[in-house]
Order: sequence, then C-alpha cells, then structure tokens
Amino acid sequence: MSATVPDAVINRLPAYYRHLQALEEEGVENVSSQTLGERMHQTPSQIRQDINFIGGVGRQGYGYNVAMLRQHLMRILGLEGNHDMIVLGAGSIGTALARYPGFAADGFIIRALFDTDSEKTGGEICGIPVLNVAELDCYLAEHRVDIAVMAVPSEAAQGLLHRLEEGGVTAVWNFSPLDLQHSTSQMQVVNVHLGDSLKTLSYRMCHREEH
Amino acid sequence: MSATVPDAVINRLPAYYRHLQALEEEGVENVSSQTLGERMHQTPSQIRQDINFIGGVGRQGYGYNVAMLRQHLMRILGLEGNHDMIVLGAGSIGTALARYPGFAADGFIIRALFDTDSEKTGGEICGIPVLNVAELDCYLAEHRVDIAVMAVPSEAAQGLLHRLEEGGVTAVWNFSPLDLQHSTSQMQVVNVHLGDSLKTLSYRMCHREEH
Repeated sequence: MSATVPDAVINRLPAYYRHLQALEEEGVENVSSQTLGERMHQTPSQIRQDINFIGGVGRQGYGYNVAMLRQHLMRILGLEGNHDMIVLGAGSIGTALARYPGFAADGFIIRALFDTDSEKTGGEICGIPVLNVAELDCYLAEHRVDIAVMAVPSEAAQGLLHRLEEGGVTAVWNFSPLDLQHSTSQMQVVNVHLGDSLKTLSYRMCHREEH
Repeated sequence: MSATVPDAVINRLPAYYRHLQALEEEGVENVSSQTLGERMHQTPSQIRQDINFIGGVGRQGYGYNVAMLRQHLMRILGLEGNHDMIVLGAGSIGTALARYPGFAADGFIIRALFDTDSEKTGGEICGIPVLNVAELDCYLAEHRVDIAVMAVPSEAAQGLLHRLEEGGVTAVWNFSPLDLQHSTSQMQVVNVHLGDSLKTLSYRMCHREEH
C-alpha cells in the first residue's frame, strides 16, 4: 500500500467500509466500480482510483470481491482489534456517545467517562463509570487508553489535552469547538465540529440555486 | 461573490466564522492572513485564496477587518435570521442535540422532536416537545421547518426523507448511517457520519509513522 494516501481518500475509506459491509450483509459477492459508484454517489473512475490507492484489485468483468475488499479495508482502518476509549465530559455529547450502541460493534469500547460535576461522578451511564476528572492522571497510569474523546467546553480542552499527552494517550477525537492541534508528531487529533457542519448546511440552503 | 465556490472552501467557511468570532471577542480589530493562518493551521496563501473566493478584501499592511469579515461571512452562511428545526428521533443523538446549547446561539432553534416510542412522546426534552412521528405530516403542514435533523435508524431514514420532501422541507442534517441523497434539486443534505470520523482516527493511529 502506498505510504502517501491523500487525506481526501483517507476520509472516504470508512464510507467504502460501510457500503461493503452492507453489500456483504445483502449477500453480494462481487461488485463493479459502476455499481459501487452508484451506491456511493461517486464516479466509477473515482472508485477505481481510491481502491487502487489502498492496493485493492478487481478482476475485469467480475469487479471487486466484496468480502476480500472489506477485510482489506478492516486491516487498513485498524479495526481488527478493540480500541479502549475514555470520554472527557459527561454532558449532552459525552452522554450520547456513551449511550450510542454503534461504536462497540466496530470495536470502539468506552471504558470510562470523566466529569467535574459531583452529581455525575460516582455514577454510571449505560454501565460505564463516571469518574472525577481529578482521577484522570491515575487512571491513565493504570489503564490502557487508545482514544480519548474530548467532549468538554473549549476552556477545559487545551489543558486536558496536555494531561492526556503526559499520560501517553496518542489519539483524540475532539468534539470541543477548539481546533485542537497535536503538539507532538505522535498525537493524532480528528476534530468533529457539529456547529460547522450545520453552518455548511445553512450555506447550501442560501446558495442552492447556484449549485 | 463567485457562484462557484468549491466544496472544500465551503466546508472551511464555518471555521473562518468561528475564528473571527473568537478574535472579535478578544478585541482584535484587524488580522493578517499570516496570523489567521497560524490560528487555523493553514498557509497564509490558502487563507487569502479562500477569503478572495467569498469576496472579502484585506488592506496591505493592515490585513482584514475582523468585524467586517465576520459580518460578511454571517450573511454568506445565512446566519442572519433564525432557522426553525425539528429532530426526527429522540434517541441518544437526537436528545443530545436537543440538550446542546450551542446551536441556538447561532439561530438554529429546535422546535420539536419526533419519535415512535410512546414512553417519550407527549413529554419534553429541555422544554422541547416530543411528538409522535405519526403527527409529522400535520406538523409540517402547520409549521415552518427550515431544517430537519435525521437521527433515526437507517431503516426509517429513507421513508422519513420522502415525507419531509412531501411536507416541503428542503434541508436535512443527517446523522443516520445511510448516505441520504436528495431526490430533488431543491433538497440539501449534509451527512454527519460519526462512525466514519472515528474510523478515520483509527486509520491515522495505524499509519502515524507514514505522515
């Protein structure tokens, strides 16, 4: 596989995985770039180019083997083992993520939530303990944490990022409105800005006649 | 303003708006493409190119006027008036969106949630009524709805999209794992696939030495 997969392709890989999962569940054995393109609203040449980037191969007249390509993507996306996660912030977003059943199916397991609110700490959400954020450093020293989810207000996010780095966490899924930036080359951050996404929709509503 | 702003630029506009809001709150009057680029982790030339696309102008040696550029972006993003929203699905994601205070500050007002669960319907979440989804068509006939949020399982999403279209809703913010596609040129859909975002992070964790 090429070491320099463009960001735009990386961002599309999970959608390929999702559509291949669905095709496999439907019992489809082979899929052409044409059919996959129609499902994913992409051109067949875009599909072939993307899959070529990750070293997937189709057979002329048969297309891609659905199960093999899905398994190949599973390895590339790092979905073969479990990922142990913690969620910082047991507010509306942190709670929703803890309650959402879809992540565990892909091996993303939330082990603990952290909050400062004494009405929440000591309790559980969907069986997941809510700990006091003061315990974070001790927790990180004693437990493996692959991914920390940042679901706290902006003011708290940067300070917590520093504590996560000190504690050896190397991946952050950030829901705070800050654009968190990794301060070491090892730290990976993916920002989810829900407000930005909603404003993009608002833009498209205002300018629909132009598109 | 150019009628053909590229998608990549459109997707960055809300981040410009967010950073300009923060600068304005900090009392900054003018900002250079250099400083804005450092904040947003973009090159100054990218910043200048993006702002040029939306018709913003800076002054040599002064940079951009923060308040004027923010107001210009507010108009372009369609954030001058309120947007009336409904949320389909009062599960973990729908509930979190209803509880999240950040949207109302930008004029995105959730007026009602809809669900099929009789334990939820008739109640309220943060003062927002939870209605039975059977009432959706009547509701749409009687109320203005600018944006519908799709927070239901995949099986239900496509059917509800059709009912929204029949009811005259022209914008959907989709959290279901389906890639919803607008069936008319008027319908605008922005998909938020949280599972995809998490898998992108997983990919980056697996391939960090390559970047």
